[in-house]
Amino acid sequence: MSLSPETPVLISEVGPRDGLQSVKSTMATADKCRWIDALVAAGVREIEVASFVPPALLPQMADAAEVVRHALRHSGITVMALVPNRRGAENALKAGVHKLTMPVSASTAHSLANVRKTPQQMVEEVRAIAQLRDAIAPGVKLEAGISTAFGCTLQGEVAEDDVIRLAASCIEAGADESGLSDTVGYANPAQVRRLFRRLRAEIGVHAGAAHMHNTRGLGLANCLAAWDEGVRTFDSSLGGLGGCPYAPGASGNVVTEDLVFMFEAMGVRTGIDLERLFAARAPLMAGLPGEPVYGMAPEAGLPKGFAQAR
Amino acid sequence: MSLSPETPVLISEVGPRDGLQSVKSTMATADKCRWIDALVAAGVREIEVASFVPPALLPQMADAAEVVRHALRHSGITVMALVPNRRGAENALKAGVHKLTMPVSASTAHSLANVRKTPQQMVEEVRAIAQLRDAIAPGVKLEAGISTAFGCTLQGEVAEDDVIRLAASCIEAGADESGLSDTVGYANPAQVRRLFRRLRAEIGVHAGAAHMHNTRGLGLANCLAAWDEGVRTFDSSLGGLGGCPYAPGASGNVVTEDLVFMFEAMGVRTGIDLERLFAARAPLMAGLPGEPVYGMAPEAGLPKGFAQAR
Repeated sequence: MSLSPETPVLISEVGPRDGLQSVKSTMATADKCRWIDALVAAGVREIEVASFVPPALLPQMADAAEVVRHALRHSGITVMALVPNRRGAENALKAGVHKLTMPVSASTAHSLANVRKTPQQMVEEVRAIAQLRDAIAPGVKLEAGISTAFGCTLQGEVAEDDVIRLAASCIEAGADESGLSDTVGYANPAQVRRLFRRLRAEIGVHAGAAHMHNTRGLGLANCLAAWDEGVRTFDSSLGGLGGCPYAPGASGNVVTEDLVFMFEAMGVRTGIDLERLFAARAPLMAGLPGEPVYGMAPEAGLPKGFAQAR
Repeated sequence: MSLSPETPVLISEVGPRDGLQSVKSTMATADKCRWIDALVAAGVREIEVASFVPPALLPQMADAAEVVRHALRHSGITVMALVPNRRGAENALKAGVHKLTMPVSASTAHSLANVRKTPQQMVEEVRAIAQLRDAIAPGVKLEAGISTAFGCTLQGEVAEDDVIRLAASCIEAGADESGLSDTVGYANPAQVRRLFRRLRAEIGVHAGAAHMHNTRGLGLANCLAAWDEGVRTFDSSLGGLGGCPYAPGASGNVVTEDLVFMFEAMGVRTGIDLERLFAARAPLMAGLPGEPVYGMAPEAGLPKGFAQAR
């Protein structure tokens, strides 16, 4: 994390994983690849391209290895995959990903519903995966994203101490970074500032991404609050696709287009070309006909005379 | 303006004026009154209830005096009306409003399109109206809202110096407060912080409301940015109704429901009961059948275990 407003932000696009995982229809592999190509063409430098889970559980992710292989053809980007367990991590590492991300929920109820393990059992899973990574692909980064860090539809309030302790445990277990996720859209800017400040105090440079949802309209305000606290990596989803199938009421990742527009308008560099980013909606919509796609900046268009700093 | 986070915020509901002025259909007077009653029942303490303009120009506002008289039955609220000129101000003062608000645009192109006067001519109108007010109703407050303060669809960029100078001129001409309006949804949080900081440096306690639009999704982030700078009055519209009929591409006032939810979730008092505020959507929708009504917090519902501080 960096408190300098000059530091560019890294937009970590989660649509091809988080987004697709939440829609009923399955996107064809070729469509996923076209979408990823369009994201890279727009300047997106980190993409969560797949989830390594049993195909019986999530048929949308059956082509995970193939999608990773396609994404790896692009140079200069970080290809990331979600892995809920050791088997998934092994497959993802075999496929050649640059970064693994693990969902570690601070709410026991959500953790059990999502991965059938308690938070503490997930920390042990982080440790096992970190060891596996060290043994076979030591250059690969491991991220532990703390889910339901701002509240849970099943459990209600989640204690801030639990969230910070869990993030610290993940780092101690071998994760390189740990960020905070508002899985169900409960976060508010005051809470976001408080928790990211505590996170940085606790784990310093290991503090990772803000993963915000727009369920109650506060997505961008929460991202701004996190940015104020020095967060420089933000998860978001093109067209606002996504949510969590195992957290009732979780809907709407922050829209990448609006988030990038906010930062670029503020003069904060993202490395992403907005017009090309808007154009990346076409392959998404072509691959998921009938699926609602959100985003106010692409609908309203850029302001008159708007010029991105380069 | 106040930098203390303990100071409650004042939500100035502009739907019955700004909102209705932008829709094609005309709401019946009885429906407007029911809507205003529901807003007051929810705890809204300032309402822009009408615009005093020639009925031929805006037939939706032909019942302005009647609506003002109805609103005045409620005690403890500030009944506000928009007045573009002396004649309007005279009629509004006769009707008994507590507060006049004048649109003074920083963009000459928008000012001419909106009120057929240059910004400088509008400052003279402010002066004339302040004198009129002093003569016949000295207790009435006069607000000058600087329109297109963050950019203009007609002119493009609006110089920040022009905005601040114009606000200062309005105060010098006799306005009690001057706020900044993002009439067309061009503002970003960095700009909002910069301009409100300059505004306060220039006119001190006379610095007024933030009037933000959600055209490109940044409405709440911009309100948060203004709040950080000490702004404690926010214009918004129930259901996000509104825009400006004379500024092409201006759509979507900030949604009152989502704005109040943001502040209340942060622990910032608004004096408004969220459940009752959500209930105030019913008379709005009944009075404007078929009109789109926005708001993510009312659609998603309040978080589990959410309790408003009282």
